[in-house]
Amino acid sequence: MNAEIIGIGTELLLGQIANTDAQFLSQQLSALGIDIYWHTVVGDNHNRIIEALKTASGRSNIIITTGGLGPTMDDLSKETLAEFLGIKLKIHEPSLKRIQDYFSSIGREMTESNEKQALFPEEAIILKNDNGTAPGAIIEKNSKIYIVLPGPPSELQPMFINEVKPYLAGKTGDEIYSRVLRIFGVGESSVEDKIKDLLQKQGNPTIAPLAGGGQVTLRITAKAASQIEADQLIIPIQKEIESRLGNSVYGYDGDSMETVVLNLLKQKGLSIAIAESCTGGLATNMITNIPGSSEVLLESCVTYSNESKIKRLGVSEDTLINYGAVSSQTAYEMAEGIRKTSGADIGVAITGIAGPGGGTDQKPVGLVYLSISNSKGTETKQLRLGGNRIRIKAAAALHLLNWLRLSL
Amino acid sequence: MNAEIIGIGTELLLGQIANTDAQFLSQQLSALGIDIYWHTVVGDNHNRIIEALKTASGRSNIIITTGGLGPTMDDLSKETLAEFLGIKLKIHEPSLKRIQDYFSSIGREMTESNEKQALFPEEAIILKNDNGTAPGAIIEKNSKIYIVLPGPPSELQPMFINEVKPYLAGKTGDEIYSRVLRIFGVGESSVEDKIKDLLQKQGNPTIAPLAGGGQVTLRITAKAASQIEADQLIIPIQKEIESRLGNSVYGYDGDSMETVVLNLLKQKGLSIAIAESCTGGLATNMITNIPGSSEVLLESCVTYSNESKIKRLGVSEDTLINYGAVSSQTAYEMAEGIRKTSGADIGVAITGIAGPGGGTDQKPVGLVYLSISNSKGTETKQLRLGGNRIRIKAAAALHLLNWLRLSL
Repeated sequence: MNAEIIGIGTELLLGQIANTDAQFLSQQLSALGIDIYWHTVVGDNHNRIIEALKTASGRSNIIITTGGLGPTMDDLSKETLAEFLGIKLKIHEPSLKRIQDYFSSIGREMTESNEKQALFPEEAIILKNDNGTAPGAIIEKNSKIYIVLPGPPSELQPMFINEVKPYLAGKTGDEIYSRVLRIFGVGESSVEDKIKDLLQKQGNPTIAPLAGGGQVTLRITAKAASQIEADQLIIPIQKEIESRLGNSVYGYDGDSMETVVLNLLKQKGLSIAIAESCTGGLATNMITNIPGSSEVLLESCVTYSNESKIKRLGVSEDTLINYGAVSSQTAYEMAEGIRKTSGADIGVAITGIAGPGGGTDQKPVGLVYLSISNSKGTETKQLRLGGNRIRIKAAAALHLLNWLRLSL
Repeated sequence: MNAEIIGIGTELLLGQIANTDAQFLSQQLSALGIDIYWHTVVGDNHNRIIEALKTASGRSNIIITTGGLGPTMDDLSKETLAEFLGIKLKIHEPSLKRIQDYFSSIGREMTESNEKQALFPEEAIILKNDNGTAPGAIIEKNSKIYIVLPGPPSELQPMFINEVKPYLAGKTGDEIYSRVLRIFGVGESSVEDKIKDLLQKQGNPTIAPLAGGGQVTLRITAKAASQIEADQLIIPIQKEIESRLGNSVYGYDGDSMETVVLNLLKQKGLSIAIAESCTGGLATNMITNIPGSSEVLLESCVTYSNESKIKRLGVSEDTLINYGAVSSQTAYEMAEGIRKTSGADIGVAITGIAGPGGGTDQKPVGLVYLSISNSKGTETKQLRLGGNRIRIKAAAALHLLNWLRLSL
């Protein structure tokens, strides 16, 4: 079984956005054992959408379109597909009601043009959109499967995972089972070096390394008839990899560093408070993205100015004068200060130079100090990070969470 | 003149990377006044590369391939294009020497397979690669232009800017000039409703709406011989749109809400401090992503627990008991409290229910209160937001920044 992805939207052809929908869908489809031989991108143009559909239908089993489901005149995907397939659209009442409810929940008036988003072929399977107004659809016609998805990743991704994936899994004969190992603190080439022999002799399961966002993942994928059979293939490889990579494997599958750390804190019944300087609230934002984080996180202080470090955290003026705001001593006092003033079991702190300005020869951009303070004492750690401001903030926050994980 | 981009590489079809080369080239080509109607991605597969070249040659003037110029067996781009065009490859001596020099400069031995990277058609214009071993090429044949570029963005981008752009600029007459209007607080369909007549009669310039991340952009694009001529086309339309959308137009081109707000604060010489509850540090993180934000932002408190609202900000226990942490009264005291305790000119606060848990009939998920406090007084505002936790956090932070912008 093979699939082809047609991205629809002039914004893609103008380079306003990258085609990350095609990337996401390709990852997902590969994991289902479905081959992808083509991506196409076409603008909001009737004739070219028809041409793309014709070409794709001639060579692929599954044709997925992304985008063009909005309420406006230049959103043509559904209408053009219906015309191409020779089928009619009519209002899908449950979808219309969902769209109306969505607007009333945010206290806004639904415009007439939004009604268009509830138009679907009668024979379609409607895909609910929990994160926007445009539902998607699956249409089976002439032994092909057409899947119509909204463009925004925040709408497309949950719709695919919750509704399209189970549908496609039911269509494919072979089942594909994956286990993802999440790794932090070791580079991709170094991970590859350590498991070179395993990579070279892989068959079923396969092992696929991928680097991104300062982390490395290894996806172990087995074709098997059942989860039990898949586990028999995957677990020995997983154990071997883990024994070589040690505690740099921090999580599995959908885990993130934040969820792993939060779960550890919950298990141990420990509360936490965070003092941030150079990361400017990022570490706290990562933690608070996770539902239930309020059970563990008491508070955070983003002490950007020296005055706030003194007043909120009790960092001593002498320390700031003698060692500077970016120093092991300041990090130490920040972590101890946030722990004591918040009453949390654990206080953590980050101070550093995120750049682009503010660096010196002695203290260059990318110099970061972390500190963790608990009832047993306070420790600090120095990092030297590369990249731009955004990357330095992200890496500093991840290093802090990873160190916290190891300390737990 | 129109162009088509063919991305070549199985890593794209597996979703290991996004097709950012197509995005970059589309931006660049649009700016040169070259229309792009198609992106295609195909794997490292001889037959499908031929099919893609055949289709593209039938409908586009310029065909650009990216990727597949590496030294390994599965790098097929040049070889397949030469076969498709019926031309022969031979070693290009200056390129071979550059590759040899490149290897000796990094202290490594050149492998035999790298010689393949110096193979080119005799009639090609060779594009130097200052950042890697694979040169690119331009081949003019049968009134079409074929441009072969390496895949890694760090090699492709400078090669395009330094060598391809001047070449193409010589081929096209007109230039393309764009102005982007950034809009917040009005939905995409409502923006379109307000400028429906302008959208319907558009020609040169064109007007393209795009929604994403809770915001709307309108891109006004003119073909013209110079910036002055373009301005004459763009500015009247821009003024007309602005008069209809009013102060929901918050910025232009590369602006973000954060930079606009920070610049306003800097201009007025005002400092700020932020108290966040449901947004959990996100608003502060957005602000601190901008270089120089430390000149304006003194500090933030993420007061997740009631205790920290009382202790850090001086919110009264009575208020929390009588009205709850998510209330106009609490938001008011948080904003006033952060202003007074930080010594900032302006204190702002957000409290709400980001979900998925914690909602009730009276106070549902998505209920958010904002407050802004300055020397003249303190105001509050209620929001009802839709979507999941991440969307509610993002929308609440953006609404706060937008309100702050309007208040300045």
